[in-house]
Amino acid sequence: MSFKAGDNYKLTFTVSEDKYKGFIELFNDNNPLHTNDEFARGYGFKGKVMHGNILNGFLSYFIGECLPSKDVIIHSQEIQFKNPVYVNDELAFNATILDVYESVKTVEFKFDFKNNLSKTVAKGKIQIGLLK
Amino acid sequence: MSFKAGDNYKLTFTVSEDKYKGFIELFNDNNPLHTNDEFARGYGFKGKVMHGNILNGFLSYFIGECLPSKDVIIHSQEIQFKNPVYVNDELAFNATILDVYESVKTVEFKFDFKNNLSKTVAKGKIQIGLLK
Repeated sequence: MSFKAGDNYKLTFTVSEDKYKGFIELFNDNNPLHTNDEFARGYGFKGKVMHGNILNGFLSYFIGECLPSKDVIIHSQEIQFKNPVYVNDELAFNATILDVYESVKTVEFKFDFKNNLSKTVAKGKIQIGLLK
Repeated sequence: MSFKAGDNYKLTFTVSEDKYKGFIELFNDNNPLHTNDEFARGYGFKGKVMHGNILNGFLSYFIGECLPSKDVIIHSQEIQFKNPVYVNDELAFNATILDVYESVKTVEFKFDFKNNLSKTVAKGKIQIGLLK
């Protein structure tokens, strides 16, 4: 088994202008909080807030591409958004295996994303299935 | 308050070839389950399985664009993936407000996505905050 409790993974993701624009083009979420600096400032943000679901796209890459096995599938995910992400923020991603359940071939991770002020912008859990 | 428990929203989303390719281009998740029909068939799927996080992009659109107020922000999401989605699948999305908590300005939804065989492919919950 190439997964064990405590295994830790660290990655860096940048919510670049291209990533932000590409996400809007793909999913058409033009909510003013994400597209209008004035609107976002009116609610106390520094400027337009990046879509939280961009981070879920990063989770797809993490599970699909960065684990010791490619023979995996996501069973469930949960994410809490705790602080705003702004365009060009570089996020430190940290994931740890909480448990490996060999009999049912599942692995549970906890993760967080921190911005360059070391503030947690999002955290959550992912459960994957091992296909073999 | 433009939100009340029991309010129901129905939308249709298609995981088109363009949406699938756009997601890969944006997030670089080329895991063979998502890109190699033979690999996916080896695990009992009909063909390559679409990324579950494409559905999270649809949730972004739902919350950002389809509610009676644009002054909202996602607090948390959880999603369980129950059956595979294949390219060009048309998904019926159904969301219902479970509760509205006026004192803390939050609204909780449950949702599911069903394929054209009426099989639930994913289900979960979203909590949003009302900015005003």
